[in-house]
Amino acid sequence: MSVTAAQGFSAAGIAAGIKESGNPDLALVVNHGPCRAAAGVFTSNRVKAAPVLWSEQVLKGGEVTAVVLNSGGANACTGPKGFQDTHATAEKAAEVLTGHNAGEIAVASTGLIGTLLPMDKLLPGIERAAAALSEHGGEKAAIAIKTTDTVHKTAVAGGDGWTVGGMAKGAGMLAPGLATMLVVLTTDADVDAAGLDSALRAATRTTFDRIDSDGCMSTNDTVLLLASGASGTTPEQAEFAEAVRTVCADLARQLIGDAEGASKDIRIEVINAATEDDAVEVGRSIARNNLLKCAIHGEDPNWGRVLSAIGTTRAAFEPDQLNVAINDVWVCKNGGVGEDRDLVDMRYREVRITADLAAGTESAVIWANDLTADYVHENSAYSS
Amino acid sequence: MSVTAAQGFSAAGIAAGIKESGNPDLALVVNHGPCRAAAGVFTSNRVKAAPVLWSEQVLKGGEVTAVVLNSGGANACTGPKGFQDTHATAEKAAEVLTGHNAGEIAVASTGLIGTLLPMDKLLPGIERAAAALSEHGGEKAAIAIKTTDTVHKTAVAGGDGWTVGGMAKGAGMLAPGLATMLVVLTTDADVDAAGLDSALRAATRTTFDRIDSDGCMSTNDTVLLLASGASGTTPEQAEFAEAVRTVCADLARQLIGDAEGASKDIRIEVINAATEDDAVEVGRSIARNNLLKCAIHGEDPNWGRVLSAIGTTRAAFEPDQLNVAINDVWVCKNGGVGEDRDLVDMRYREVRITADLAAGTESAVIWANDLTADYVHENSAYSS
Repeated sequence: MSVTAAQGFSAAGIAAGIKESGNPDLALVVNHGPCRAAAGVFTSNRVKAAPVLWSEQVLKGGEVTAVVLNSGGANACTGPKGFQDTHATAEKAAEVLTGHNAGEIAVASTGLIGTLLPMDKLLPGIERAAAALSEHGGEKAAIAIKTTDTVHKTAVAGGDGWTVGGMAKGAGMLAPGLATMLVVLTTDADVDAAGLDSALRAATRTTFDRIDSDGCMSTNDTVLLLASGASGTTPEQAEFAEAVRTVCADLARQLIGDAEGASKDIRIEVINAATEDDAVEVGRSIARNNLLKCAIHGEDPNWGRVLSAIGTTRAAFEPDQLNVAINDVWVCKNGGVGEDRDLVDMRYREVRITADLAAGTESAVIWANDLTADYVHENSAYSS
Repeated sequence: MSVTAAQGFSAAGIAAGIKESGNPDLALVVNHGPCRAAAGVFTSNRVKAAPVLWSEQVLKGGEVTAVVLNSGGANACTGPKGFQDTHATAEKAAEVLTGHNAGEIAVASTGLIGTLLPMDKLLPGIERAAAALSEHGGEKAAIAIKTTDTVHKTAVAGGDGWTVGGMAKGAGMLAPGLATMLVVLTTDADVDAAGLDSALRAATRTTFDRIDSDGCMSTNDTVLLLASGASGTTPEQAEFAEAVRTVCADLARQLIGDAEGASKDIRIEVINAATEDDAVEVGRSIARNNLLKCAIHGEDPNWGRVLSAIGTTRAAFEPDQLNVAINDVWVCKNGGVGEDRDLVDMRYREVRITADLAAGTESAVIWANDLTADYVHENSAYSS
């Protein structure tokens, strides 16, 4: 499982002392080759953390030897000193791993924005993490990147003789483009950087980019895909892309399932849209409607709030042709009252909303969560 | 005060039995002239309630004799029957007031979306409201339009010999374009429909359109301005517009002050923007950030969440030139750590966030609220 499911990788997760709690907070993932091809996708927030600015440059080279990830601090909005710290982190990893240079080391950070990382703990931690590297270290690495996550997230898929594995963290600040997440995927397939990039972008577009826990876009989102080529196998691109998508979809679903304070996972499917963009826009508008998210929390099939959310979009539709189902009961037909709302059973964690725009044949699925008092508590009681 | 502060108007507020609670739920405002000029601004939600569709048509005539407002049901997403009900409401008012036709009667509704109004209670209620009309009825009318409002909202302003007064309701689903609000303004100034329209649009653009309680846009927002000309005075347009703006700003501030579950009113001022549109876009993005709204609730000056919200906009700025103050303490300077966040005193209800984009000379103020467990409770425990 995790980032060591594929051959050619080792990983470690340790407690470096970055978190005051003493919980694991530093992960290291190393690609032992023979290949070092890599691809990355980063937050579209214009305020980007130092490690994002750094790793974007590293990925331009198309090769990554190792990834250093820390929880316990986002290193965002930390100015030139923050960027120097990320650079020093990469330099330290390159030195410890010997024979590599900092330009091959990606860095990812997560935690509170606006505070400098304790480099006196992080740099010695890299030495200890390197000493702890193991072919079975994927699980520990996945644990070390958790912040408010209650569980660590890993997934694996693959084909004949090759594997794609990955780990993810993220629980709040989850919104398209991307979510507050750090994700590292590894594969032993022999795929070049262009093939990795193509597969990764296609996968994130319909997975991580279509979950929305709380409408908030992070400064630190990073999704990396590293290939070792250790299997000696080069799969068909379509087959490889599908495996990457499977792992991304699995991890994205796990992120939604562990979102801060959530009691419901909401699957919003927009159907019969004129374009896929319309379907996504409508899905996101529904996903971000606080009133609806509260209603779902209260197990109230309040379809009026779905319609008011649809009404704020530019998508093609006629108000009197809209249909909405909640858990397969079409409570709204032709923009008005449909089947009896008392037929809707909302006792289970997963809630399905179907919005029929009656304007075409395109569709999209967005995953979201309800809005709960626990979410408010978790994000008001202390800085995160 | 309220809609009867200006000469030439009478009003009433009664309990017609629309609300199961038995609370007041029907208001009537009548313009006795000699003029009947009127202007209106309505929700920009594409899913519009029946009374909005009706009143938009009435306002095209530029004359309004009376406004019937009900709480206890939005009459939105109610199909052709809902529109017929609005029509019947206007017909009934025209009949009761004698000598007028339904085309001069504006209708406004608020409450749950997707249920038909109990016309067997509403129509007799109009007769009773007409019988209760009084030059001192403004207060009762303001009370009868409340939904989850804890207090009724009225305001008044004016000049030499003329007055502008108004009432508003709204507590949730408050977001630009417009908020979930019903507002009726009256004046005894002698101003024609074009002058009213110009003053009203200018006023709402910088008041009701710049409050955002919960990011949710209503299907029913209606703001009406009726002129009786009873003062016999025609003020300068600029002076009149300023009085309208004063009343709108006063009512908008009252709406934010009574938003569902809120414990803080947040004044977000965006300064040094390249354009006013940029300032508004950034202000709204900050206003809608759930994580920031939770932090403010927790009295946590978490400026990183302000920066992450700014970063999602298309406004002109450089991340390393952004400055943010919370209650006048510049906790973020040049995109990084600024003054000591412990200096920020957040004990009071009003919280001021200043976002300096360092990109120009334009500015805008957006008002918002914090996100609280009470908001979640109020919007999950029952349908509204």
